Amino acid sequence: MQVEFWYEFASTYSYPAAMRVEQAAKDAGVGLVWRPFLLGPIFGAQGWNDSPFNIYPAKGRYMWRDMARICEAQGLTLKEPVRFPQNGLKAARLALLGQDETWGPEFTRRVYLANFAGQQDISDEAALSGILEALGLDAGALLARSNERANKDKLKAQTEEAIAKGIFGAPSFVAGDELFWGNDRLDAALGWAKR
Amino acid sequence: MQVEFWYEFASTYSYPAAMRVEQAAKDAGVGLVWRPFLLGPIFGAQGWNDSPFNIYPAKGRYMWRDMARICEAQGLTLKEPVRFPQNGLKAARLALLGQDETWGPEFTRRVYLANFAGQQDISDEAALSGILEALGLDAGALLARSNERANKDKLKAQTEEAIAKGIFGAPSFVAGDELFWGNDRLDAALGWAKR
Repeated sequence: MQVEFWYEFASTYSYPAAMRVEQAAKDAGVGLVWRPFLLGPIFGAQGWNDSPFNIYPAKGRYMWRDMARICEAQGLTLKEPVRFPQNGLKAARLALLGQDETWGPEFTRRVYLANFAGQQDISDEAALSGILEALGLDAGALLARSNERANKDKLKAQTEEAIAKGIFGAPSFVAGDELFWGNDRLDAALGWAKR
Repeated sequence: MQVEFWYEFASTYSYPAAMRVEQAAKDAGVGLVWRPFLLGPIFGAQGWNDSPFNIYPAKGRYMWRDMARICEAQGLTLKEPVRFPQNGLKAARLALLGQDETWGPEFTRRVYLANFAGQQDISDEAALSGILEALGLDAGALLARSNERANKDKLKAQTEEAIAKGIFGAPSFVAGDELFWGNDRLDAALGWAKR
């Protein structure tokens, strides 16, 4: 059984998850699919117009400290982003184009690094072009395709699919009919997929 | 360094934590202190008059499934409580009397079992008396002491202490100045205490 990795570029805990999910799945002998989606519409439907980590300050303070410990343990740099949460819409549209392509995973990791380690604005097309070009891709063509109606609609449909699967936060992992929420559930999801 | 285990009797994830924390701390060679507190005032200050698992249905549905997996893996019975969340005030006042006594941990575990495995009403003094008596304790005397002003005030002060430590949910673990939130952070808290 394969595991689906559902992620949102603004999501803090999706960063350590994205950086380790490919190796972890490989080590477990489990297939992996990458599924970008948008948390904004899901949070909006709950009445949140901001990250719950901003709405609930004690939870936010804890999250940043917890992230610092997790990133340190994983050997990942963590620097305060240029803003939180960042707008990951354009990056998600690009990641959607690459979700089943060989470049998709590395593009995704580099966007997370730009957001949480590189203090870059990931809503900036120049920053996204730089990442695509560094991967030897045609940035102009991909940006154009990412902004076509069909791709925009596909990202909306993928977010609807996330909701239909019961997803309410990121990262989430899906193994068959089982949902696992949070970076700390990656091993449980891989274990379930091997049952 | 010791670890503080902060718990609320209505909290679902505090149940598997309470059932394993003593053995886990012993295995890690870390001292353990039990600290009951009340989540109600903390949630109320955030504008919640109910459990977030009831306020946000997708999160609630996920939590119960996640709890079922966790309890199965831990060999714990999980049955739908008589209501959720239950009122754990009286049980917390009793647990406070026992928090540094030899009977405190076992009383706490039996209240969690009554709530999440035994379908008992843990706000019922008869149920709490039954637990105390099964431990060979003077239920009448302890219930009377638990309802004295000094003990009520001590529980309020302990909840204030939780807030001052940055606690916003349960279970939480504190090791020195470090806060860890969630049953899934027990190992990290014990690891930190051993550093």
